[in-house]
Amino acid sequence: MARGEYSIIEDAAILTDGARIAWIGPRGATPDIGECEVVDLQGAWVTPGLIDCHTHLVFGGDRSGEFEERLQGVSYADIAARGGGIASTVRATREASGDALFDSARTRALGLLREGVTTLEVKSGYGLDLANERKMLAVARRLASALPLTVRATCLAAHALPPEYAKRTDDYIAYVCDDMLPALVADGLVDAVDAFCEHIAFSPQQVERVFRRAGELGVPVKLHAEQLSSLHGSSLAARYRALSADHLEYMTEEDVIAMAQAGTVAVLLPGAFYMLRETQLPPVDALRRHRVPIAIASDLNPGTSPALSLRMMLNMSCTLFRLTPEEALAGATVHAARALGLASTHGTLEEGKMADFVAWKIGRPAELAYWLGGALPNRVVRGGAEIDFGHIGA
Amino acid sequence: MARGEYSIIEDAAILTDGARIAWIGPRGATPDIGECEVVDLQGAWVTPGLIDCHTHLVFGGDRSGEFEERLQGVSYADIAARGGGIASTVRATREASGDALFDSARTRALGLLREGVTTLEVKSGYGLDLANERKMLAVARRLASALPLTVRATCLAAHALPPEYAKRTDDYIAYVCDDMLPALVADGLVDAVDAFCEHIAFSPQQVERVFRRAGELGVPVKLHAEQLSSLHGSSLAARYRALSADHLEYMTEEDVIAMAQAGTVAVLLPGAFYMLRETQLPPVDALRRHRVPIAIASDLNPGTSPALSLRMMLNMSCTLFRLTPEEALAGATVHAARALGLASTHGTLEEGKMADFVAWKIGRPAELAYWLGGALPNRVVRGGAEIDFGHIGA
Ligand SMILES: [Zn+2]
Ligand SMILES: [Zn+2]
Repeated sequence: MARGEYSIIEDAAILTDGARIAWIGPRGATPDIGECEVVDLQGAWVTPGLIDCHTHLVFGGDRSGEFEERLQGVSYADIAARGGGIASTVRATREASGDALFDSARTRALGLLREGVTTLEVKSGYGLDLANERKMLAVARRLASALPLTVRATCLAAHALPPEYAKRTDDYIAYVCDDMLPALVADGLVDAVDAFCEHIAFSPQQVERVFRRAGELGVPVKLHAEQLSSLHGSSLAARYRALSADHLEYMTEEDVIAMAQAGTVAVLLPGAFYMLRETQLPPVDALRRHRVPIAIASDLNPGTSPALSLRMMLNMSCTLFRLTPEEALAGATVHAARALGLASTHGTLEEGKMADFVAWKIGRPAELAYWLGGALPNRVVRGGAEIDFGHIGA
Repeated sequence: MARGEYSIIEDAAILTDGARIAWIGPRGATPDIGECEVVDLQGAWVTPGLIDCHTHLVFGGDRSGEFEERLQGVSYADIAARGGGIASTVRATREASGDALFDSARTRALGLLREGVTTLEVKSGYGLDLANERKMLAVARRLASALPLTVRATCLAAHALPPEYAKRTDDYIAYVCDDMLPALVADGLVDAVDAFCEHIAFSPQQVERVFRRAGELGVPVKLHAEQLSSLHGSSLAARYRALSADHLEYMTEEDVIAMAQAGTVAVLLPGAFYMLRETQLPPVDALRRHRVPIAIASDLNPGTSPALSLRMMLNMSCTLFRLTPEEALAGATVHAARALGLASTHGTLEEGKMADFVAWKIGRPAELAYWLGGALPNRVVRGGAEIDFGHIGA
């Protein structure tokens, strides 16, 4: 999917063998494999299954009440003083049972799947203690067995400071590094480790402790960086060969260069940019110039991006960040796969990769980014099997 | 639905009699009417059916190609010089058969219906001659018979200058007034007459000729006004007792006062604001202060607002225009009904009004504006009958 080309194969055929792509190419060149089931996609455009590589899809409660209060004129300070903001989501998530978290997460994941998302990342980070982070990550694993989805579980214990550690940030980081990460990794619940590097969260030094521990445990890292200010978290992430650094509105060109050299993916999150009415744009031109792969994700979370649609993010990445529709699509497929460490199996349609794809009833691929909201008619194939949404249920 | 209250009835019941609401109130006070079918909505929040009071939902082609070219760096001037922009939609609409226009419009209307829109307005304005404006308006009428939807058809012949009238704007307006409007009204295809008052379209004087003719024909008017500059079209609309003036970013306080006195609804269109990256906000505070009813609509059109979702517009009206979620909901129900001249039959849940409502599986009404994109689980009732989307087909 080189820029400007979409790597289009006109009048193509795809042979699948179980969950994998056995062959893809021009229909006229299809190898003869004898008896097989043939599905005519009737001229649809076929893309890789979409990949949402940054979500906080598992959470208790929602923050629509705060959304309303803010628009009625209540200040952030007042809402925070009443225990609102992320603290309220932590409380609601801790109070929720695993089943309740699963039910609401399943509804959101199913909505994404319906629009063609066959792989998604789910972060913890509202539990903030061992039992509750484990509960969240277990829901992520359960989603993968309950729905035809690939789910990557990311431990974001270093998301915010839990109330019981107020003013003891270093102690909390020690707890994350010494207790939580080793236990959760041992449970097989962690595909990557993430942190939030920001004045209102954790310092680069604290993040570095988390990264070092993750390295010792053999788990790759990613980072929420440069969302609200420039702490050079993205350079730090690059130093630790992070899969991705995410948000990045306030990154510098030096950060961009560091990421380019490390091969770290830049994950842009236009939903949070939009909801926060941010005006500082991520440095898209510098990212292009230094050939940093750009991914696009929903950042689905109850506070700053209650985004139930990845396709809406494609539109926002074009409209707000001025990506081309092709860059946006690459950002939700090939580059998103790389941001999850899945580049060898997901994100493009190639022999040997997963047979995850979407057949769209559209006239050209730019429509995926052009239409604003709503649903586009499609058929979703995951692991070689078409999903029958009538039988998955709502 | 007074501001700050939503006019909520807790634990309510609705009695329907055919297509109408026979009674609505607290469940405990339900009158005894003997045998009747009871549907338990299981604690869902029930709102009036949503109303999208400004759409250009019938059109040929789409403009995703231009969307992509613009993001690749091609200038508007170059695109226009090649016959792009609205001219390309006029060409595609003229070339399309009524059946082809109907098929694509039906898909879009069905998408809106699925998310709870039971009434919508459809404008002509891409035909720009008698035969093609008639073709568009006939599609609007056909939508109303093919889907369980109330459709209001608005003649927007004064949308743009067709190529055959280049540099003869007054002659085109004469054609609209003398030939098109009388014929289309006589055909029973026109519920309202609209025009585009802007430097790039028609002058206030030309709009006034259209309004006068509409008045003679007994048809109410509306106006695209103050979108790109201040021509006081909204004051002109008020003078002609227009149902609504729409867009309004550049209106003055004098325009607001004129609309307040005339009872003209202000229809805000955040999708176009967003897609054009407009920075001039509509004067929401002045509209509130002078008690002008504010409606919100999709402006669904292939150029400046390819919006397939009205709920997305609720979010944008809050996020971008700082409406409260309650104002947004009123804007897509009670005030939208008034903008269509349907205040006596639609837009609120009251005895005698249409039994058009949506049961939402949400925790509070603010969620309708809070979630960004995607679909919220709901059940849609139109004219007293629940819509079975499994049987309507895609
Ligand atoms: Zn995040
Ligand atoms: Zn319009």
